[in-house]
Amino acid sequence: MSLAFVALLAACQTAPVETPVADSPIEVPQAETVAAATDPIPGQQWLYGSAEASVVMRQTWASIAGYVEAKAASAPTQGVVLTPDSSPRAPSFLACEGKALAAVFDADETLIWNLGSMGYFASEGIAFAPAIWDNWEKTGAGKAVAIPGALAGLDRIRAAGVTVIVNTNRSAENAVGTEDTLRAAGIGDFSHESTLFLRGDAPDGSGKDGRRAMISENYCVIALVGDQLGDVADPFNDKALSVAERRAMTEAPAVASLWGNGWFVLPNPVYGPSIRGGFDDVFPPATQWAPTPPADVAPIN
Amino acid sequence: MSLAFVALLAACQTAPVETPVADSPIEVPQAETVAAATDPIPGQQWLYGSAEASVVMRQTWASIAGYVEAKAASAPTQGVVLTPDSSPRAPSFLACEGKALAAVFDADETLIWNLGSMGYFASEGIAFAPAIWDNWEKTGAGKAVAIPGALAGLDRIRAAGVTVIVNTNRSAENAVGTEDTLRAAGIGDFSHESTLFLRGDAPDGSGKDGRRAMISENYCVIALVGDQLGDVADPFNDKALSVAERRAMTEAPAVASLWGNGWFVLPNPVYGPSIRGGFDDVFPPATQWAPTPPADVAPIN
Repeated sequence: MSLAFVALLAACQTAPVETPVADSPIEVPQAETVAAATDPIPGQQWLYGSAEASVVMRQTWASIAGYVEAKAASAPTQGVVLTPDSSPRAPSFLACEGKALAAVFDADETLIWNLGSMGYFASEGIAFAPAIWDNWEKTGAGKAVAIPGALAGLDRIRAAGVTVIVNTNRSAENAVGTEDTLRAAGIGDFSHESTLFLRGDAPDGSGKDGRRAMISENYCVIALVGDQLGDVADPFNDKALSVAERRAMTEAPAVASLWGNGWFVLPNPVYGPSIRGGFDDVFPPATQWAPTPPADVAPIN
Repeated sequence: MSLAFVALLAACQTAPVETPVADSPIEVPQAETVAAATDPIPGQQWLYGSAEASVVMRQTWASIAGYVEAKAASAPTQGVVLTPDSSPRAPSFLACEGKALAAVFDADETLIWNLGSMGYFASEGIAFAPAIWDNWEKTGAGKAVAIPGALAGLDRIRAAGVTVIVNTNRSAENAVGTEDTLRAAGIGDFSHESTLFLRGDAPDGSGKDGRRAMISENYCVIALVGDQLGDVADPFNDKALSVAERRAMTEAPAVASLWGNGWFVLPNPVYGPSIRGGFDDVFPPATQWAPTPPADVAPIN
């Protein structure tokens, strides 16, 4: 196999569009090309095209709305945002203190599917390019769509008297473009630093804990929803965590029961900190297997 | 770009492990190699490795268990299996007629993750090979694991007095291997043609409606759960449906409210009938976008 073959294969095996932020805790490559493709990759076909993903999204959104309705009706005294001095391994949560209730959502691949930019990247064979993403934040209104189930879910959440707030790593400099994009997708009218929080609003860069603290000054947050764990708490995105350690952190007894009960994740197999790991991370050695007897199935190549 | 490059790229862009059945309504390729990979593909990294997927699975399983508990307590008179003369567009459902309650699950990527065979295929650069899969059905016990959340969910379902039944397209000839695999993963003790239904048990091949009818002779099925729509009703897998038509069929008013309420889908962005579609199917023309002004972002290649 030629070196060029190896390079191309490596590219197509590792061509997720990375988390679209400039100073993410996760590595963000510069413009990286993988040659024009004949079809979207399997993860894109599943997420943006399949009936199965559409159903999964509607199921999950209905479950989020049901949770928020029940919680709002229960006069909660405590929210689901970690206190600044706690962590997922030893959590404590901010008190409601009589504040208005809110549910906080990531935007990209949580409220909206970025079909315009994702389709452009995919058809041009670009893994990710920060300048193009920046342009997308400014000009993408009308080319992103609401995720299936999101509009019905948001209607129920608002009808329950809960304010919908967006906390996204889109840039504060592009606030108008993001407000336009959310409005055009039917998500609603959002206002920067009131119901829309962006990268740059707090000093912790693409970390979201700073913005969650800002939101919590005015609201009791009863639901945190995103496509990656950083939408719930920044310690989950600590770069020092291995794939297995990161998974284990979500299973810590003190937070395990929160998933689906205040903390929610929507599937995104296309980009972000979830797209990571070599063979031994993804297929642990204890599960390794090979067909027997080999003569039965060879030759396969 | 050389022809070989194009061929390799096409292979890696379309390398889902296809639905592991010999006479699936969906195309099943013969052994097809894509060259050894340096990392699992993004969909595999997400599904089998990420904390996000683990959380999504636990959320969904908790929601399935909650639904089944509530439904079982409500003395239902009607199940969620379509009558033979109806369809998702004009559904009617089999009556309970006082039968014992059951929940019916697909096996692969619904109850268990096939880490052994999927890791072998991935590390060898094989998209799918029927002979190897057949060997896996016979010998894989101990190398497949319960999906996160499944064991806790099944405990709740059984405690609610609901029988757990498996309806999978694994071959009836390998019944013992599949019983062993489910037992070793902690899913439970299943018995062929009693609580385990396999391809070959009914005359409709990899269609599952025939087996759902057999199960319904003895049980009122209150939940159908899988990673693809054929786990709920075969008409969803009609080969004549376009990607958009298949999605639209899940949104038919008569069945739209069933998702998350009797019909459940778990995410599998790695293989199956959900992995399908060209650029225009996945990124509809109405959402097509390109950066402006081009000078701002060029050159990217």
